[in-house]
Amino acid sequence: MFSCRLSKQVFQRSTSHLRLQKRTIATMTTTSSSRKYNVVNDPMIYIGTFIQSPRDDPRKLDICEKGAIGVSADGVIEFFEREMESYDSLIAKYPAYEDAPVLTLAPKGQFFFPGFIDTHIHAPQYPNAGVFGSSTLLDWLNKYTFPRESSLSSLSTARTIYSRCVARTLSHGTTTAAYYATIHVPATNLLADICSSAGQRAFVGRVCMDHKEINPDYYRDESAEESLKNTCACIDHIKSIDPNYELVSPIITPRFAPSCTAEALEKLGKLAKETNLPCQTHISENRNEIQLVKKLFPEHDSYAEVYDAFGLLNPKMILGHAIHLSNKEMELIRSRDAKVSHCPASNSALTSGGARVRWLLDSGITVGLGTDVSGGYSPSMLEAVRSTALVSRHVAMTDGEECKLSVEEALYLGTRGGAKVVNLEDKIGGFEVGMEWDAQLIGLTVVENAENGKEEFEGDDVVDKIAFEGAKGAGPVDFFGWESWDDRVAKWVYNGDDRNTLSVWVKGRMVWSRM
Amino acid sequence: MFSCRLSKQVFQRSTSHLRLQKRTIATMTTTSSSRKYNVVNDPMIYIGTFIQSPRDDPRKLDICEKGAIGVSADGVIEFFEREMESYDSLIAKYPAYEDAPVLTLAPKGQFFFPGFIDTHIHAPQYPNAGVFGSSTLLDWLNKYTFPRESSLSSLSTARTIYSRCVARTLSHGTTTAAYYATIHVPATNLLADICSSAGQRAFVGRVCMDHKEINPDYYRDESAEESLKNTCACIDHIKSIDPNYELVSPIITPRFAPSCTAEALEKLGKLAKETNLPCQTHISENRNEIQLVKKLFPEHDSYAEVYDAFGLLNPKMILGHAIHLSNKEMELIRSRDAKVSHCPASNSALTSGGARVRWLLDSGITVGLGTDVSGGYSPSMLEAVRSTALVSRHVAMTDGEECKLSVEEALYLGTRGGAKVVNLEDKIGGFEVGMEWDAQLIGLTVVENAENGKEEFEGDDVVDKIAFEGAKGAGPVDFFGWESWDDRVAKWVYNGDDRNTLSVWVKGRMVWSRM
Repeated sequence: MFSCRLSKQVFQRSTSHLRLQKRTIATMTTTSSSRKYNVVNDPMIYIGTFIQSPRDDPRKLDICEKGAIGVSADGVIEFFEREMESYDSLIAKYPAYEDAPVLTLAPKGQFFFPGFIDTHIHAPQYPNAGVFGSSTLLDWLNKYTFPRESSLSSLSTARTIYSRCVARTLSHGTTTAAYYATIHVPATNLLADICSSAGQRAFVGRVCMDHKEINPDYYRDESAEESLKNTCACIDHIKSIDPNYELVSPIITPRFAPSCTAEALEKLGKLAKETNLPCQTHISENRNEIQLVKKLFPEHDSYAEVYDAFGLLNPKMILGHAIHLSNKEMELIRSRDAKVSHCPASNSALTSGGARVRWLLDSGITVGLGTDVSGGYSPSMLEAVRSTALVSRHVAMTDGEECKLSVEEALYLGTRGGAKVVNLEDKIGGFEVGMEWDAQLIGLTVVENAENGKEEFEGDDVVDKIAFEGAKGAGPVDFFGWESWDDRVAKWVYNGDDRNTLSVWVKGRMVWSRM
Repeated sequence: MFSCRLSKQVFQRSTSHLRLQKRTIATMTTTSSSRKYNVVNDPMIYIGTFIQSPRDDPRKLDICEKGAIGVSADGVIEFFEREMESYDSLIAKYPAYEDAPVLTLAPKGQFFFPGFIDTHIHAPQYPNAGVFGSSTLLDWLNKYTFPRESSLSSLSTARTIYSRCVARTLSHGTTTAAYYATIHVPATNLLADICSSAGQRAFVGRVCMDHKEINPDYYRDESAEESLKNTCACIDHIKSIDPNYELVSPIITPRFAPSCTAEALEKLGKLAKETNLPCQTHISENRNEIQLVKKLFPEHDSYAEVYDAFGLLNPKMILGHAIHLSNKEMELIRSRDAKVSHCPASNSALTSGGARVRWLLDSGITVGLGTDVSGGYSPSMLEAVRSTALVSRHVAMTDGEECKLSVEEALYLGTRGGAKVVNLEDKIGGFEVGMEWDAQLIGLTVVENAENGKEEFEGDDVVDKIAFEGAKGAGPVDFFGWESWDDRVAKWVYNGDDRNTLSVWVKGRMVWSRM
């Protein structure tokens, strides 16, 4: 199988290194068995090709073919040598890493890439991924979403769903996720526990929705007080397991304006101000939704102004979707430095509209990507990157060529952009000294072929059996050998999936591996 | 791993059946070692859930949960019992199948589905899948496509690429493909040989392109005579390996109007009339291309009329793309009963436009789907089905809700629709007595969970380790147990990939298996 074949290529290090790596993982598992987050790894050296978006140039890829990165016990990148000469010279320069295990990549089809940052995902909706029929936002909520979310009143249901959701997102290279949970405090706390234990960096939001006319009786907060109280209960829990929010942080989560009373929005806005915690909500996803906001909040001029009126339009707010914004709303959002999570797969699936990402970016708004499971059908951030490029081409068909987003730009949005959206741009989203090692190891399938190269074939020979059989059990991306690094990345973006994400690290800890 | 775990569930039959199945495959391999197509299988019985599009209702799925299908030695469906009571009663009714091996599916996450029909794919471009940058059609041809295709002048290069392409398309459940090859006769013949040997039903077209001003010097036919002569050479070869075109058929392939002189189009049109062979070309993919046709063929009123003038607009013509057709062109195409291959992934990738499929269908035009590798980035027909649904939503955003295509409709286009496009609707695309067994076995991943169901967790217990670890090495579609068959199919369409295609049969022969 794919993973087994690769494992030998990948781990080109001594057996003692392999043993050391195992010991590290064992230590981590033991540590994570306590609910309190406190992980210490062995320092590690990573050698190979490192590809990332430059911090300030979304249109390029920074490709470093002969790199070496040293990661400290607390998961921080301590050195990044871009032209490594030899292991010995490296250790001469960084003697503290003399005993560190080394992971050296195969030179052609493998590279390190920053972990993806999913800035908008509803964890409880994971089981519904792909199930939305021909619905649009408002009927989708009532038909598919609220019934699913309400089932997480059972903690054992929540445990299965959240465990699987975190496993799946990790498998797709999501090292940081901004999660919407449900209204349930115990299940929301459990999601935080699971992220902490599994090692995924996460923002976990207990969903607030107290509007009696909009939300179903079987699934809503009884009052604005309850919205606030239960939000605080979840904040307290996360503080108890991760006091400095090193890995898991609470996030204040009014579902969206229509689902909340003015009173709830006011209380949550105040809480945001007092605590300086991040916030997330939805904005301007669907035209009927915008009409509903107008009807419910007639005293405010626009959807954006509703949030602004309650202090929720702030630099720590993540606004999901932002498809149909007016110019005035865009300017308000920019002036408040609120962030936008672009969710292309969801916007196509629910026929919400084509978000004008180029316009947002050119206007100076910070944009990241979200899978928006399960409005979005896929938990894969690579699919979100791919959809970003493809949806931008549909926007370009009506609004002009300049709206196209390249593979490089889409990857930037999925990493550096996302890091800015969650206000962690100095910690994650790229490989720089002082940043943390949130990374994925990407591997493509090398196409082997019959080497005789003969130009005449007889009988069975018509099929190149090595090339043919090599497709069995292989990952989806074929590397033929002629591809530049840019080509390899494009192939990964357009055809790759979780089979190409061989290993994933968060804060220095290996949290997922196919090998 | 996924495939191993499933194998035990799937093949619920006696060891003797397993032996028999192996013998069948061995026989086939021996047979296929001769270049002449002549495959005889053992008769087989398939038991389980069969899902297909009804022949005349694209908006529904026909779901048969307790079905049994008997397939004869020559791959024809001899019986389809929709309410099987017991094996004994089945054999009492069909005693000829007493010794036939039986393949019985697991009841919940597995079903048989008709094989996909890819009505437009460029096999030599397979290595370029995903590599197109920000190009559009005409610059894409010169930058990426012609250089790649010209490399197939080497037969050993062609052998590797075509072997891999056929393996990959089979792995995605493509049981029939309408291939564009290159201008090279030996490589085109080799593609036919490979399809015949590997067992994929195929139309193989030697590409004609003789226009000196449009095609590059390094890659074109020298003259219209050469276009015709080399086309005939490939027809002769395919006739020699498959005299009745049982599996592999030639297809007359003028690349697209601009690449051919009027003389070449005329000769190929005549050849089509004389031989009654199928034809394929491109139409109205890109606005600049349409302008080019206007410039090159000023005496014709439209792109469609160019083909019509040379007798190429006929019931056996497959027209790729058809995005920007005028009403008049649409009516001409309908009156000639020419067919359309919709290639949504390609149309998004190359920013060609959003094809108005609902309009074509409502106008009475026959439509199938194509991957259009490598304008299309993926060799997966499931991706083409998914893109069909998603792209139709973008068309709906501008043209109205009624333009949306459902999962059911997209699957119809990928099977029944494609069968009509290649004029094989009485042979393939569905499960009916008298049709041939071109099928795929689809399997979803059943989510197992910790069964203790306790509502309080301590330490390690926060993660449901069974649900978490079960995601490792699993296929991409999670089946939780509550899903209706419609939900299961939707999950497969939106998140599935080749890992869900466990086995593939063409004309009764098993041609791909992950098990």
